[in-house]
Amino acid sequence: MSISKAPKVSLVGAGPGSSDLITIRGYKALEDADVILYDALVSMELLNELNTDIPKLYVGKRCGQHSYSQKDINKLIVEHAFNYGHVVRLKGGDPFVFGRASEELEYVESFGIPVTVVPGVTSAIAVPASQGIPVTRRGISSSFWVMTATKRDGSFSEDLELAAKSSATMIILMGIRRFQEIAHKISQFRNVSTPFAIIQNGTTRNESCITGILNDADSIVNQIDATQPGIIVVGEVVAEHPSFFEEEIQRVLNY
Amino acid sequence: MSISKAPKVSLVGAGPGSSDLITIRGYKALEDADVILYDALVSMELLNELNTDIPKLYVGKRCGQHSYSQKDINKLIVEHAFNYGHVVRLKGGDPFVFGRASEELEYVESFGIPVTVVPGVTSAIAVPASQGIPVTRRGISSSFWVMTATKRDGSFSEDLELAAKSSATMIILMGIRRFQEIAHKISQFRNVSTPFAIIQNGTTRNESCITGILNDADSIVNQIDATQPGIIVVGEVVAEHPSFFEEEIQRVLNY
Repeated sequence: MSISKAPKVSLVGAGPGSSDLITIRGYKALEDADVILYDALVSMELLNELNTDIPKLYVGKRCGQHSYSQKDINKLIVEHAFNYGHVVRLKGGDPFVFGRASEELEYVESFGIPVTVVPGVTSAIAVPASQGIPVTRRGISSSFWVMTATKRDGSFSEDLELAAKSSATMIILMGIRRFQEIAHKISQFRNVSTPFAIIQNGTTRNESCITGILNDADSIVNQIDATQPGIIVVGEVVAEHPSFFEEEIQRVLNY
Repeated sequence: MSISKAPKVSLVGAGPGSSDLITIRGYKALEDADVILYDALVSMELLNELNTDIPKLYVGKRCGQHSYSQKDINKLIVEHAFNYGHVVRLKGGDPFVFGRASEELEYVESFGIPVTVVPGVTSAIAVPASQGIPVTRRGISSSFWVMTATKRDGSFSEDLELAAKSSATMIILMGIRRFQEIAHKISQFRNVSTPFAIIQNGTTRNESCITGILNDADSIVNQIDATQPGIIVVGEVVAEHPSFFEEEIQRVLNY
């Protein structure tokens, strides 16, 4: 195959799930793409909407089932840029929020291929929002901390303890399978009546949300589908979720 | 004036500055709007692009010059919904990131008017990204903390100290005018060679960026235009900014 197009790469954030939550700039990059390499968290709806027959290659990894290593992905991006021209590397959420965009960017640039990064709406904020949970709220929370709970070796990050001691809204990614342990750890430093929410398949039709207070962690753990990724939110702002009003009304009605 | 349209309100995030960084859903809401109430941080380019002659009302407040109080804004939204139909309340960045969206949402809903929230790309992440600074990077930073440095009474938040003690990338909003004090406070708990960046007018043509290490805070403070809002980023990931490479090259060349 021979092409005349110069190789270039766009690292594009697809947003939190729903296909219309990508930015206009991101969508235009997709329309201009000669090939798309996409992740597990990208909505198929978005890819299907694109009226093109360009190749769309799934390079996702999920819950340890690595179809491709990061090294493989880096190589694929470069190969496809030389073979096709404009590669759009489409990632769920925002490329720079646990998206390993820096690694891809540097690898691609080392071949002299120009790279553009198009930011996306991060799931860390938009998914709680879709459940009516604001990450900040005047008088309740003036900061939010987005983190993975565990380090590469599987141990808990020291930052988890500092965050638990603070008044920040805690937003924990990639922690679903260890929710119970995480809740116990946080309970050592925060009031056990602090509300939490576990949101899965955020901003899509299958969105689900489990809420409770830290003290309930043991009793709700069976309700979690640990095969799906999700977001854990811990903090007073979670009390904005309708389930807490309903509970209150229920309490009043039962009185 | 009499209208037949039912009142409704969309709280829409305009994104970090550039007009094409709004989401598709947000742009469609603007196209459907009967009136737009917008903030100081919203790009005029975006408003000018809209091919409509609907009223566009500026309700921003900046650096203490409150044209409208939050109470006034809440009332304006409701009045305009009853008078015009679909109000788009357009906010810079994401409505739930220090956007006081919850307050507007609750006030409007208390009148029985339906409210939709459309998330936006938050400046807290996209503005550092526009300077090549990733808020997370594998092996360097596995969390980021978005905060205002000071509490409502002007004193420093306790969270600032906890964040300084952690390994999180610190992203400080609304702190430009107190940068020097903030840097001193952080220096008590973090290595004084930790890099920082101060970014103003992010993702627009006038974007500016000052970088350095915490130890340099006193010497660079005169370079900051304190009349403009901006974002302070502190953490090892800031070393990804090109200025640090240039400095390194300069050091080697001078050797």
